[in-house]
Amino acid sequence: MKLRFLGSLLLLLAMTTAMAQTKKSFTLDDLMSGGSNFWNLQPKRYQSAFWGDALVRLSVDSARQVYSAKGASTDVVLFTSASVNEVLDTAVVGKVYNLLYAGFPEPGRTEALLFTNKARVLYDWKARKVVWSQLMPVSVQASEFSTASRSLAYVKDWDLYLRTADGTDHRLSTDGSRQLQYGMSVHRDEFGIHKGLFFSPSGQRLAFYRMDQSMVTDFPLIDISKRSAELAPEAYPMAGMTSHKVSVGIYDPATRRTVYLKTADPTDRYFTNIAWSPDEKTLYVIELPRTQDKAELIAYDAATGERKAVLYTETNAKYVEPMNPIVFLPWDSSRFILQSRRDGYNHLYLFSVDGGEPEQLTEGKFEVIAFLGFNAATKSVIVKTNEASPIRHNHYAVSLKTKKRTLLDNGRGTHYARLSTGGAWMVDCWSAPDTFREFDLVSTAARKSIVLQQDGTPWADYNVPEVSGGTIKAADGQTDLYYRLVKPVDFDPARKYPAVVYVYGGPHAHNVEEAWNYWMRPWEAYMAQKGYVVFVVDNRGSEYRGFDFESATFRHLGDVEMQDQMKGVDFLRSLPYVDADRLGVHGWSFGGYMTTNLMCSYPDVFKVGVAGGPVIDWKYYEVMYGERYMDTPQENPEGYAGSSLLPKAKNLKGRLQIIVGLNDPTCVLQHSMAFLRACEDAGTQPDYFVYPGQGHNMMGKDMVHLHERITRYFEDYLK
Amino acid sequence: MKLRFLGSLLLLLAMTTAMAQTKKSFTLDDLMSGGSNFWNLQPKRYQSAFWGDALVRLSVDSARQVYSAKGASTDVVLFTSASVNEVLDTAVVGKVYNLLYAGFPEPGRTEALLFTNKARVLYDWKARKVVWSQLMPVSVQASEFSTASRSLAYVKDWDLYLRTADGTDHRLSTDGSRQLQYGMSVHRDEFGIHKGLFFSPSGQRLAFYRMDQSMVTDFPLIDISKRSAELAPEAYPMAGMTSHKVSVGIYDPATRRTVYLKTADPTDRYFTNIAWSPDEKTLYVIELPRTQDKAELIAYDAATGERKAVLYTETNAKYVEPMNPIVFLPWDSSRFILQSRRDGYNHLYLFSVDGGEPEQLTEGKFEVIAFLGFNAATKSVIVKTNEASPIRHNHYAVSLKTKKRTLLDNGRGTHYARLSTGGAWMVDCWSAPDTFREFDLVSTAARKSIVLQQDGTPWADYNVPEVSGGTIKAADGQTDLYYRLVKPVDFDPARKYPAVVYVYGGPHAHNVEEAWNYWMRPWEAYMAQKGYVVFVVDNRGSEYRGFDFESATFRHLGDVEMQDQMKGVDFLRSLPYVDADRLGVHGWSFGGYMTTNLMCSYPDVFKVGVAGGPVIDWKYYEVMYGERYMDTPQENPEGYAGSSLLPKAKNLKGRLQIIVGLNDPTCVLQHSMAFLRACEDAGTQPDYFVYPGQGHNMMGKDMVHLHERITRYFEDYLK
Repeated sequence: MKLRFLGSLLLLLAMTTAMAQTKKSFTLDDLMSGGSNFWNLQPKRYQSAFWGDALVRLSVDSARQVYSAKGASTDVVLFTSASVNEVLDTAVVGKVYNLLYAGFPEPGRTEALLFTNKARVLYDWKARKVVWSQLMPVSVQASEFSTASRSLAYVKDWDLYLRTADGTDHRLSTDGSRQLQYGMSVHRDEFGIHKGLFFSPSGQRLAFYRMDQSMVTDFPLIDISKRSAELAPEAYPMAGMTSHKVSVGIYDPATRRTVYLKTADPTDRYFTNIAWSPDEKTLYVIELPRTQDKAELIAYDAATGERKAVLYTETNAKYVEPMNPIVFLPWDSSRFILQSRRDGYNHLYLFSVDGGEPEQLTEGKFEVIAFLGFNAATKSVIVKTNEASPIRHNHYAVSLKTKKRTLLDNGRGTHYARLSTGGAWMVDCWSAPDTFREFDLVSTAARKSIVLQQDGTPWADYNVPEVSGGTIKAADGQTDLYYRLVKPVDFDPARKYPAVVYVYGGPHAHNVEEAWNYWMRPWEAYMAQKGYVVFVVDNRGSEYRGFDFESATFRHLGDVEMQDQMKGVDFLRSLPYVDADRLGVHGWSFGGYMTTNLMCSYPDVFKVGVAGGPVIDWKYYEVMYGERYMDTPQENPEGYAGSSLLPKAKNLKGRLQIIVGLNDPTCVLQHSMAFLRACEDAGTQPDYFVYPGQGHNMMGKDMVHLHERITRYFEDYLK
Repeated sequence: MKLRFLGSLLLLLAMTTAMAQTKKSFTLDDLMSGGSNFWNLQPKRYQSAFWGDALVRLSVDSARQVYSAKGASTDVVLFTSASVNEVLDTAVVGKVYNLLYAGFPEPGRTEALLFTNKARVLYDWKARKVVWSQLMPVSVQASEFSTASRSLAYVKDWDLYLRTADGTDHRLSTDGSRQLQYGMSVHRDEFGIHKGLFFSPSGQRLAFYRMDQSMVTDFPLIDISKRSAELAPEAYPMAGMTSHKVSVGIYDPATRRTVYLKTADPTDRYFTNIAWSPDEKTLYVIELPRTQDKAELIAYDAATGERKAVLYTETNAKYVEPMNPIVFLPWDSSRFILQSRRDGYNHLYLFSVDGGEPEQLTEGKFEVIAFLGFNAATKSVIVKTNEASPIRHNHYAVSLKTKKRTLLDNGRGTHYARLSTGGAWMVDCWSAPDTFREFDLVSTAARKSIVLQQDGTPWADYNVPEVSGGTIKAADGQTDLYYRLVKPVDFDPARKYPAVVYVYGGPHAHNVEEAWNYWMRPWEAYMAQKGYVVFVVDNRGSEYRGFDFESATFRHLGDVEMQDQMKGVDFLRSLPYVDADRLGVHGWSFGGYMTTNLMCSYPDVFKVGVAGGPVIDWKYYEVMYGERYMDTPQENPEGYAGSSLLPKAKNLKGRLQIIVGLNDPTCVLQHSMAFLRACEDAGTQPDYFVYPGQGHNMMGKDMVHLHERITRYFEDYLK
């Protein structure tokens, strides 16, 4: 009897193993976003747009209203691409090829903003006619469209133009060049800046950035795609060196005049977070001196450019980092919301344009991760915070009156929501460690949630690893750090496995969250399949944990970060199935810095490392980011010397491969080349690889090539 | 008895092994010229200079006459550095620090030309006084000194100057720049060109090159040694692209006037092998059109620049390649010697300035490798040829009257000799497979040879490999190819060893000669010590074997060369101790091209390759060299396409590491970067490494680093 039971158990075990073995193994073409099979495996997203508060489901061929503004299920085909094309003057404006990006500018009108291959088209589906269309200029470097005025601002050949709704082109600049840019993003996208064109609410005026970088040293990048390589220089101000000068212009197509804000001397000054007042009479800018220890919210007269008032000043001995423009209450144009980390965490503050003490709307040892907008009916703001757990991101309505926060979503996992134009609903896309993805329609007023689409795992046919999350203590002995642990596929606790630490470690990023598989990167599944343990922990210095957590690294990047990562190594070593003699490390960008640093600082701990696009010495990094965390090399020589990897090149013992994009404009070639030179001089032997034509991050098919390369390196030397 | 004998034999074997084991193993610091122990191991060279026909032994401290002009042994201290410094005005001209480079301009005078740290000094050791001195300009880009006139021509900040014996500086140009060069070598050092300044025999006039390369595309090399990398562009005309324009000027300091030769349009024309007539009235230039299928020896009036006559025209459907200026007979200024391969081998021809058929002085299926000069007493020319064997290089006197060649040296090995000013003697430095090095004083008239210095092997204390030479048949089944075979140290014929083919394979070079160890490169000894067989064979296309042998590769570089190398592989495979599954290949420059080509063309033969500074596609190579062997891409599209390695990138299976100098001005970065891009696009995985600051060949300490790297790659993947 007993024997028989054992026999059954063995049979069961054998069957389980057999089943596991019938499942597929991953290829990098399955896993990487540039892979040939990646998109076949990905469930289609729930594509939709709000028409006021009503939800419209968008497909290639049709736009169907699926929920009413009240949340009642409907199924009304509003229009199809065929019906639009029937009434389009296709010879002039081209054809509509898909409706996936349709927009609905006016809640009260049956109008959709659509794209043909050549034009923007406003289509009235009730009247079945084209209300308006505008040809799109080609080869633009940047553009911004105002749905309110239907004006299009665009940059072409470095000069700035405004095409008004009637098709008239206004030329706003004539001296634009790579070194004198109009309408482009400035300050290397720091301070939350990601564009250079800002329409007023009515779309009748355009604020824009102008950046003079003629005084900035060019870094000589080269483009080898030509018959003989050509210079493709990047104006790159390195820490402590001369920076660019930015100003803000306002153009009025009615008068055809541009006014520039009469700011303080733009030398070594940053202009961020541009916002219009609802009445369009005022332009708000947050300004910082190069030292970044002060931020001022300054109001300028939009008609004259005169400086009117400083509404708010924030200082911090380390740094201030305003990331978000102010936003006015839709129902009260005298009050606006500003985000600040002045109490140590990112929170919302309600200000009055007339001055007076701001009112703190959110408070606590957590961060407001996103500000989505308003529900005007309930007089609340909709935000995403991580108050439930640092790695859990949920949406809340915050009553302006009571400051009470109401959880809107299901309270699990991590969520990404888009608010309706009316503010009553959101489409919430979320995942959790055990849930691949779900789209919900979520009310911002009542606790009401409707499932729109549930996506099962795309890896059902594959042999997947076990992924778990947890916390360890930071090197300070107190702070919780969140980790993800990926076990080898077909895990056998009796075996000893090599382990690879994946690391980023810098500000403005995290790697572990309560998303599907704790946000495991697909490559980790590939490594698990190859028989590796993969471990990821977000050290101090990373995001969403408050200012103290982030700025523990101030003036000496790398030190605290590595101490925390070594706590992760201690944890790994404590696992009976990890072979402590076979530890590897891999990271990109800041993670490339961390990888190289760990390989050179702990040469007896890590046997193999792959560092992508690494910073090697912060004096080669740019002014805005670099000086925020490190001050200038002149002010902080010890910090720069101590955090440089050039003197550590001599310590390299293990196998370290550095991989870069030849055309990286972010971590310029100087970093890796200086490190190679230092290793050559010291007699150490790193490995190196380059992707010509790629920038700071690899794109497309090269992602497959890259990860084949990274994997091969660990297979060669860590297996 | 029998048993006892066997016992003794075993004991003897054990002792031999024990002895072998007590010998040292090589480090790369011992072997490589940039290594810290290299010079300690090298026996000192026999440093000497001729004073007329007398031999003076030079040391740091003294100049001793050791042989008379008649070859009688003497030992007379002519002077010491101390005695020179006693009479030097050291405050003005500095001190003499060593006498190793002393010269004796006039056989009849007791004068030595010496260098201080600041000046050239002419010292009369009999009178014990300084006869003349001249300060040397600093930071010069090129310079040429005339012992006859004691004038110094030099280039500084791209402009050309002439400093006459009295110290007067003449400025010959004012518009010199990187793009408009005066007095520098031109045509990328092809056609035997290695300098741009040519004094007339009396030193009273100066001919010089002027090169306008403003129309040439710059290749954007970068210098990363700066704080932020700087552009260091190289005007680089790629095959088929616009080339530079060269002209030849003649400056007369007496009139302070420059005359330019009135040549044909210098567009797409090459000016080489500049020579003065003895009376200085004529300047001879050999000129080629860009097609390189014709060479004309043209005489110009040195005073007016007018073209006087075409003395000789040579054509060849493939190419002509004049490498040497004409040389006049010292005793007859109406006759000169010209070297030509017009009969298929490089030979000497005696011409008259008055025209008429030239007289062929040497003839046969061998090459004149060097022309050393004349013995005026015997009316003979002194040459080096390889008539005894393609890989044996000996010196001969050729009687102008009888054309009889008389062997001068010992007829073994390979020889490098320097002729005395009087022409009666040579100092001959030679080696042979079993002889490290010997210096002899050799008569150019009688068969007389005096041993000056015999240097034993510098590796006596080391465990060295067995090196042998031999021949195999080329892929044509007929031609003998010469090889070198290096067996592993402590060779065991019963074992199977991995084997590495070292290859160059291009024109103007050979790798096997009857020198010490058949000219083994030190790294081969290192590899032998690591347990590799190393094999080197000079394929068709390489030098010293005549025009047909070299030009078999015409218009399709790589094909015939690889066919011959594969014959070498057949030979290797036939050796019982070579493991045919572990074949590697390594080469630099043309050898890097061959290595990459072999790896991609025979992916199942070669497992591992290391390609240094490779050509990848001949369309990226320069005009002069590239078009000689390949014509232009426009004329020979099939040849360029077929010899390009870009389409072969997809075939790569084994491990191939490409290594380049970041600042390589010869094989510019375009080659390796385009290959990486092609591999990335094709999904193959080469490895890559860069030496920032290095050019086409690694210099100094990096040679140790490089060879550690190359060795490690074979150890990683071929062992």
